[in-house]
Amino acid sequence: MKIKGKHYKTIWLHPENENIVQIIDQRWLPHKFVVADIRSVDEMCVAIKDMWVRGAPLIGAAAAWGIYLSAVEVPASCARDFFFEESYGKLLKTRPTAVNLKWALDEMLKSITGNDSIIESKWYAKKRAEWICEDDVKCNTLIGEHGLKIIEEIAAKKNNATVNILTHCNAGWLATVDRGTATAPIYLAKEKGIDIHVYVSETRPRNQGAQLTAWELLENEVPHTLIVDNAAGHLMQHKMIDMVLVGTDRTVVTGDVVNKIGTYLKALAAFDNNIPFYVAAPSSSIDWNIRDAFNDIPIEERNGEEVKYVQGLLEDKIRSVLISPKETPASNFAFDITPAKYVTGLITERGICMANEAGIKELFPEKINKNII
Amino acid sequence: MKIKGKHYKTIWLHPENENIVQIIDQRWLPHKFVVADIRSVDEMCVAIKDMWVRGAPLIGAAAAWGIYLSAVEVPASCARDFFFEESYGKLLKTRPTAVNLKWALDEMLKSITGNDSIIESKWYAKKRAEWICEDDVKCNTLIGEHGLKIIEEIAAKKNNATVNILTHCNAGWLATVDRGTATAPIYLAKEKGIDIHVYVSETRPRNQGAQLTAWELLENEVPHTLIVDNAAGHLMQHKMIDMVLVGTDRTVVTGDVVNKIGTYLKALAAFDNNIPFYVAAPSSSIDWNIRDAFNDIPIEERNGEEVKYVQGLLEDKIRSVLISPKETPASNFAFDITPAKYVTGLITERGICMANEAGIKELFPEKINKNII
Repeated sequence: MKIKGKHYKTIWLHPENENIVQIIDQRWLPHKFVVADIRSVDEMCVAIKDMWVRGAPLIGAAAAWGIYLSAVEVPASCARDFFFEESYGKLLKTRPTAVNLKWALDEMLKSITGNDSIIESKWYAKKRAEWICEDDVKCNTLIGEHGLKIIEEIAAKKNNATVNILTHCNAGWLATVDRGTATAPIYLAKEKGIDIHVYVSETRPRNQGAQLTAWELLENEVPHTLIVDNAAGHLMQHKMIDMVLVGTDRTVVTGDVVNKIGTYLKALAAFDNNIPFYVAAPSSSIDWNIRDAFNDIPIEERNGEEVKYVQGLLEDKIRSVLISPKETPASNFAFDITPAKYVTGLITERGICMANEAGIKELFPEKINKNII
Repeated sequence: MKIKGKHYKTIWLHPENENIVQIIDQRWLPHKFVVADIRSVDEMCVAIKDMWVRGAPLIGAAAAWGIYLSAVEVPASCARDFFFEESYGKLLKTRPTAVNLKWALDEMLKSITGNDSIIESKWYAKKRAEWICEDDVKCNTLIGEHGLKIIEEIAAKKNNATVNILTHCNAGWLATVDRGTATAPIYLAKEKGIDIHVYVSETRPRNQGAQLTAWELLENEVPHTLIVDNAAGHLMQHKMIDMVLVGTDRTVVTGDVVNKIGTYLKALAAFDNNIPFYVAAPSSSIDWNIRDAFNDIPIEERNGEEVKYVQGLLEDKIRSVLISPKETPASNFAFDITPAKYVTGLITERGICMANEAGIKELFPEKINKNII
């Protein structure tokens, strides 16, 4: 997508030095646009763990490039495949919830191990990481096209009055390599001239809505309004929202959706007010091996200081302020689970399906058959 | 309640100068404890409007003292009763949603008008304002006793394991003259030695949970944990909450509850997880004249800058940081409506009742008969 009119992806190989991966360091957005050079698998682990990059698909892409970097840096004296497996292990540990991470790492490990030379490993790793990035953009483009139909239907029903979409967190361009998952239909609708407006819920504690989604919508000229997470119910009760559209960090084959903490509350409100609630879910975010999301998916618990300190701009510097008593303890679960019954549909790269096993199976028969039945 | 071991109410007459009302200026909590002198009705209007004091019962008490101050300052040359009515009008306009404001003002106007002298008006106004404050504390004490029974029942069912209560916003000591509404049962349970723990939802955008509730629980040694508003659903799904207990700015005779924005989302999650959801509702917060909360209660819309700028402590100073792009518009509804069907019960000073007309009528037959049937 565009920043000040120039097209950017969120991650790319340094144009002049193939030993460096470049990322948009998202920690300073929307106030500062910083590109960071990542030179090793350990640096990539830090970038993922400390959320320089975040968003399930981008975590996958970043991990892929992390494996590539391990091929760049593997010492000649090392048992190569063992070194790559170590890198795989380090990257897998960075964030526990998004399934794209494991998916991308598995894809990479297949490409990078068992080669005859380090040059071959690096070459295959580069190709595979590039493919993962291209596949992400391709999936998002298709999700955009499928999701557009829903927006068009709503617009038609409203006689082309403004379609109001609520999104949560950032399942945008910045959460992927490009286009975004939940934002893909939004950007496409905007490009097609549909009158849309996005309510952006700020997404405490890390404010990805306020800091990232608002910023990328602004840069790409999509009309939007920032709200606190608390406001979603009120807006829905007052028919100010036509549709909810979010991403997912992991969706299981039964259709339960793991996504940013607070998604479940929005789904409940949408259900209570008969508002369609869609999840943009590329197949890389579907966990084909899990049925019981509540018991089998680890929900990341992050440091409580993220709740107590809020980062923002003050006199041109990025600073953090303490919003509670210093002694107050805080808990900080990063994700929640929206039961399938509250999800109107999953928007995948192969089309839209019901959030249940039959629906998913219709679109991805080969995956379901292989792994769980 | 106590601050550093010393007992404070939230509003009182200056001990050495009867022409001054003193309040805890809550804008700087938890970082600075500031007592402000209020010397005129106009100053009291600012204190209410700009949220130096907030919380439905305290807004009522502050307005009462505002009317008292108008008796202090009324020029001898003025048509007294007309002056008082003007003060009434100014105070009534400060905040639109809490019904306690009108209730207290009506009580005051009856006392202050029609007297033979300014001395008499001032005397009656003082007595009435004192009565409103005492009545508030008395109601809260009774709400504490009724609510305690619910907590005791939960504790018994759990074999005296910790009772986890979720509260939203600040319906605490700081929202009233003393004890709080939703916190009254909590403080009493703590005093009775029941093992309780409170989840405090931060309550964006103004963070009354993080800034006020966490602070008063800390000062009064009630175990608590701060969470983001988004986290309530996750905690309920994982049985980490035994009961939700909130206040109300206005509850109508059908049982629909107007309270801080985000209350509705918590009620939906409580309902979805079979967790009791109670509202501490002194009768001064019940609107006996309204049935249709959705159409007949004005929901205050505050400045969007409150969403975009977050206040907190930085290097011993209270500062505000910008969390979104400067150009992003924000909307800021202050309250939402929880439909009665999601409310387990109302805890009033006369006991606990179902959140519906029959339930309320059983406790307050004289009010219901008089006004709406």
